[in-house]
Amino acid sequence: MKTLWDHCHAATLTGGKYSIIEDAAILTDGARIEWIGPRAAAPEIGEGERVDLEGAWVTPGLIDCHTHLVFGGDRSGEFEERLEGVSYAEIAARGGGITSTVRATREASEDALFEAAKRRAFGLMREGVTALEVKSGYGLDLANERKMLAVARRLGHALPLTVRATCLAAHALPPEYANRADDYIAYICDEMLPALVEEGLVDAVDAFCEHIAFSTQQVERVFRCARDLGVSVKLHAEQLSSLHGSSLAARYQALSADHLEFMTEADAIAMAQSGTVAVLLPGAFYMLRETQLPPIDALRRQRVPIALASDLNPGTSPALSLRMMLNMGCTLFRLTPEEALAGVTIHAARALGLKATHGSLEAGKCADFVAWRIERPAELSYWLGGALPNRVVRGGAEIDFERIAR
Amino acid sequence: MKTLWDHCHAATLTGGKYSIIEDAAILTDGARIEWIGPRAAAPEIGEGERVDLEGAWVTPGLIDCHTHLVFGGDRSGEFEERLEGVSYAEIAARGGGITSTVRATREASEDALFEAAKRRAFGLMREGVTALEVKSGYGLDLANERKMLAVARRLGHALPLTVRATCLAAHALPPEYANRADDYIAYICDEMLPALVEEGLVDAVDAFCEHIAFSTQQVERVFRCARDLGVSVKLHAEQLSSLHGSSLAARYQALSADHLEFMTEADAIAMAQSGTVAVLLPGAFYMLRETQLPPIDALRRQRVPIALASDLNPGTSPALSLRMMLNMGCTLFRLTPEEALAGVTIHAARALGLKATHGSLEAGKCADFVAWRIERPAELSYWLGGALPNRVVRGGAEIDFERIAR
Ligand SMILES: [Zn+2]
Ligand SMILES: [Zn+2]
Repeated sequence: MKTLWDHCHAATLTGGKYSIIEDAAILTDGARIEWIGPRAAAPEIGEGERVDLEGAWVTPGLIDCHTHLVFGGDRSGEFEERLEGVSYAEIAARGGGITSTVRATREASEDALFEAAKRRAFGLMREGVTALEVKSGYGLDLANERKMLAVARRLGHALPLTVRATCLAAHALPPEYANRADDYIAYICDEMLPALVEEGLVDAVDAFCEHIAFSTQQVERVFRCARDLGVSVKLHAEQLSSLHGSSLAARYQALSADHLEFMTEADAIAMAQSGTVAVLLPGAFYMLRETQLPPIDALRRQRVPIALASDLNPGTSPALSLRMMLNMGCTLFRLTPEEALAGVTIHAARALGLKATHGSLEAGKCADFVAWRIERPAELSYWLGGALPNRVVRGGAEIDFERIAR
Repeated sequence: MKTLWDHCHAATLTGGKYSIIEDAAILTDGARIEWIGPRAAAPEIGEGERVDLEGAWVTPGLIDCHTHLVFGGDRSGEFEERLEGVSYAEIAARGGGITSTVRATREASEDALFEAAKRRAFGLMREGVTALEVKSGYGLDLANERKMLAVARRLGHALPLTVRATCLAAHALPPEYANRADDYIAYICDEMLPALVEEGLVDAVDAFCEHIAFSTQQVERVFRCARDLGVSVKLHAEQLSSLHGSSLAARYQALSADHLEFMTEADAIAMAQSGTVAVLLPGAFYMLRETQLPPIDALRRQRVPIALASDLNPGTSPALSLRMMLNMGCTLFRLTPEEALAGVTIHAARALGLKATHGSLEAGKCADFVAWRIERPAELSYWLGGALPNRVVRGGAEIDFERIAR
């Protein structure tokens, strides 16, 4: 079934600034883009359907390439206590922080996790997200990491949404392994990853490389294991200090290294050589009131592809909006609106290993796109919060949000 | 017609921390709250209707007490140029900045301004705003200030929304008065304000007191004029420097002084004595990457009521979300979630002169409230962006957004 999505302007993101086609049309055949170009040159569609986009701007479907959107509980109570003057130490002593999310996630049924995650994913989809990544990392044992990854898979089946599942077992040390980090890493490599990969639940493997989490040596063990299992890796790196995890990630041809506030130019060179995407997470930067900016100029100089993501998680970035990250990427990190948009489309696709099929508007790729009622693409970054009116097309079909909300 | 809004928890904001009633019900009679209290004590409703709120948290309708939401054009192009390295000076030399908004607003028809403003107001309403202020200040002559204020009045008639119109003719010097600021102030006082007040278009009078705008002497002339006309005043004060405009505002019993990053403790004492509300605008603070925080501790110490608003405007705060300001008030200004919520309800009502009828849930007040599907009120400040599911009741009737969007 062919459809001509007619009468629009397209920011195709195929290279160059936005790669704009004015007065454009897009021909889809089922779930694929068959043709895109100037309206005047549009092919005949025969018995196909024609949809009038009324002069909208069309972008690729947005891609949120770093989320922890499956979790139990939330941390709004802790957020409030902190602002009322309770110290981190006191909250940690009571079992707050990530420990409380691990506890709540372990206690939650798969169905409960699924329902809560579906609501969050739905909110992201309404503002134009057609693909996203979900990390595990609050289960921290085989059964509970499996439960989280199974929820990620269910989201992809239940919603018109492409979901990539990343195993982040090396996120934090579970309480039962206190002071035995190496033993926990061995458990991940010997038992968890082989089982979860075997079960088809893992699209990539991630870890948190930081003084408060795992060392580069421990991360490298996880990476070696992933390589042996034939799975790509990613890394939370240089968020709070410079351990050169991003260079380590590059050595393992990581899809992405994420956060990166404290990375060096040498790290950027390594990432450029391996084609590793720099995923910046302005939501956590903002919520933590960090002051160390990621080295945008070094990334530009070395031509490292830059992506932006929500980092949606209950502790440091309870972000229910990817578009808000465009504004924060520009306002806080001084990205241009064009860099920000590329960061949630073509570069985000690459960070998920989906570059061949997603992230730009071109013949052969998936027909995932958003028609925005705006005057110019910069508006996607300019407006602060709120909803911009849009129509979301995924796999060649317009999403009826009213229907799927029921 | 009586309705019992049953099975909820209420954050009534009548005093004390949130002023919570658990297991609450609200009885409305037409557009008023007749009774609110524990479900167990709910009055008989006879033939009235019962609505099951399914355990939602109910807050007063949100009030955005400082917006410039009527304007022509937007400044996304300029936002992009700035991030691409074009200097402020260059943009100003081309007629950018507020000058471009004045030009676009003057050129726009009343209908075009109304349609654009309605879309923005609608977005705010969807997230729970039931009352807001609209300032003029991009017309800067009698005909165009009148046009803006007329749009504000139309919004109040066309939407289920309480709209307060503020004349901000003393916002900037129009080009035709270049180097003649005193003459422009005389024009405001001798012609514009008397005419616009006479026409019933003005609920309050505002000015911008700053080195780059008007001096305290000029502002005082405007305030005296407003007093003679029997209209309350407000002031944009101490945003970029300390001119003690907030103390001046207090001397004129201003409803509010707004921005206030550079205010002093003496200013806070003056405001406390006059009952002037401190309206904080974290959106502009964020977009301008300011570092001077408003003196929250001084405001708390002096018990100055603190409100939060979007400052929705095309230059320094293109904010389409008031809830985002709750998060920014907490994250950037370190307000507690309870202070933030009071800032968009009871204190915002006071900043608009609506305290007798709006801003809290109590018998006799307008039946404007929001039922949120959340577990605790702190979530309203905690989640970063996105839409929280809610039902909005204004004047005793639930708003059907699908219907009014058509
Ligand atoms: Zn993360
Ligand atoms: Zn303002």
